[in-house]
Amino acid sequence: MSDISFYREEFLNYLESNLSKKEPVNLYEPISYILQLGGKRLRPVLVLISTEAFGVSYKKALDAALAIEVFHNFSLVHDDIMDDAPLRRGKATVHEKWDINTGILSGDAMLIKAYQLFENYEVHQFKELAKLFSRTAIEVCEGQQYDIDFETRDDVSIEEYLTMIEYKTAVLVGASLEMGAIVANASKSLQKEIYDYGRLIGIAFQLQDDYLDAFGDPETFGKQVGGDIIENKKTYLYLKALEKLSVEEAEQLRHLYTILPTDNAQKVETVKHLFEESGAAEKTREEIANYTEEAFQLLEKLDIKSAQKNLLRDLGESLLTRTI
Amino acid sequence: MSDISFYREEFLNYLESNLSKKEPVNLYEPISYILQLGGKRLRPVLVLISTEAFGVSYKKALDAALAIEVFHNFSLVHDDIMDDAPLRRGKATVHEKWDINTGILSGDAMLIKAYQLFENYEVHQFKELAKLFSRTAIEVCEGQQYDIDFETRDDVSIEEYLTMIEYKTAVLVGASLEMGAIVANASKSLQKEIYDYGRLIGIAFQLQDDYLDAFGDPETFGKQVGGDIIENKKTYLYLKALEKLSVEEAEQLRHLYTILPTDNAQKVETVKHLFEESGAAEKTREEIANYTEEAFQLLEKLDIKSAQKNLLRDLGESLLTRTI
Repeated sequence: MSDISFYREEFLNYLESNLSKKEPVNLYEPISYILQLGGKRLRPVLVLISTEAFGVSYKKALDAALAIEVFHNFSLVHDDIMDDAPLRRGKATVHEKWDINTGILSGDAMLIKAYQLFENYEVHQFKELAKLFSRTAIEVCEGQQYDIDFETRDDVSIEEYLTMIEYKTAVLVGASLEMGAIVANASKSLQKEIYDYGRLIGIAFQLQDDYLDAFGDPETFGKQVGGDIIENKKTYLYLKALEKLSVEEAEQLRHLYTILPTDNAQKVETVKHLFEESGAAEKTREEIANYTEEAFQLLEKLDIKSAQKNLLRDLGESLLTRTI
Repeated sequence: MSDISFYREEFLNYLESNLSKKEPVNLYEPISYILQLGGKRLRPVLVLISTEAFGVSYKKALDAALAIEVFHNFSLVHDDIMDDAPLRRGKATVHEKWDINTGILSGDAMLIKAYQLFENYEVHQFKELAKLFSRTAIEVCEGQQYDIDFETRDDVSIEEYLTMIEYKTAVLVGASLEMGAIVANASKSLQKEIYDYGRLIGIAFQLQDDYLDAFGDPETFGKQVGGDIIENKKTYLYLKALEKLSVEEAEQLRHLYTILPTDNAQKVETVKHLFEESGAAEKTREEIANYTEEAFQLLEKLDIKSAQKNLLRDLGESLLTRTI
């Protein structure tokens, strides 16, 4: 049976063979650079597994998988400019290594290149893939805009926050799986179901990311624990805590999210205490469990190959059981 | 007979009815803003005329025309960021009125939106339109990158310069006309021929723009005469003059293109004198005439409706006979 590392290797070989050395080099070098920076390659692997789950060789899905990865990296290049981020996966971001203009223009070319990767599919698949891709890409832009807007708003609702993380993160996971179903000519209802599995896992993953940012084990969590709190990021934990706290404590929490103290340790401790005491921490764990359960129920009912169903379950579980 | 202003009005009505008031407003307002800033709407009008030239109602081409205009405005938004331009058509650019991040993200959404506008076409047309669009959009990005690269290179060849203006400007004019042919289900050879008409007119137009920037009538030329010389922009005139001048005079011209004097009048006069004396000015007029003649010969042979052929000829002539 093919395991996840097999699909990842096959994808990486295909990616390698597709890197362009075309002119103008100042447009294409940054594209090769960001695509070779590494990462888990989760989304393209999902495209390949999904295609085989519906009984068609992953080889037919390599272009769609590459399109998803190119789009994901396009969004990283442009987001890193917007966030003024110097590092991505421990290396210089494109706009740091070159400049902002290079980041903008190379990103634009990547977005177009992603569409071109669908051109080898026959007309009906081409249209379905491009439509799904456009809808998803627009939602990712909308998610990014909501995320920016939320920084300066103090009336963000839990519902709005969930829409934001769904658009910014989860829809691309769903679309990766649906693309596999399209490449395999699966029925519309199966396309929709596997999309929803990815979408729900994606939301659970993002809520978990919020949770671990505050309560993760510093030994194993990749990022600085408390980073979101230090940066006053209005996550699910924060919004839920505001909803549940007394008027006075909510006021205290709001105040803590207006300051940037030089020593953050005290602020992080106080905020975490409020997250726990309010029940927001527990509620977040419950929500993660709810989304996860709904996702896995959908997956179990899905009429797909059992080998790939097992891989999708393993992938989902590995995303959701890291270092909680 | 429908004249150009008829097609422009119909396009503007369609544009108006398609402006989105969707959430998030910070993503969609800048898009409506730039699309309503005005302009000649040359490219979408060409899509409509081309469709009718092949015997199909312009109404079928409104979405394709809007896609071309949305793409053109996407490229303006991102180029204005790269050029640090405060004004566009006398109004604040998107990144001036909002900020750079808004300009990047709204531009991205416009590029995706352009693809979505093809979705109402049936599968074969959809694929042809999207493929032509992607190829053209990539060329526009490459043209922009070459333009940026040329600023800091002193070995740009005439051939490279012509490729740059072809990609940056002319291919989109060609693609506008070819889209009309695709919407009208015209043959591949007719698609190619009308594309080439637009491409050749586009190159002639850009060479003319270079020429008028130096030798245009200050009374009627829209921009500051001598602007390219002041900014040391390596246009066709400059590259041709370097080719034709003696070693000493070429050195003088190169030197003039390294300085930014406070009083530009003397520099502009000297450079214009070198452009004339070297024969570069005359050669540029010849090249414009060559591209124009080739374009109009192609147009005359084209088997299309005479009313629209006349409009395309009128449009071509009006672009090329302004204030020379």
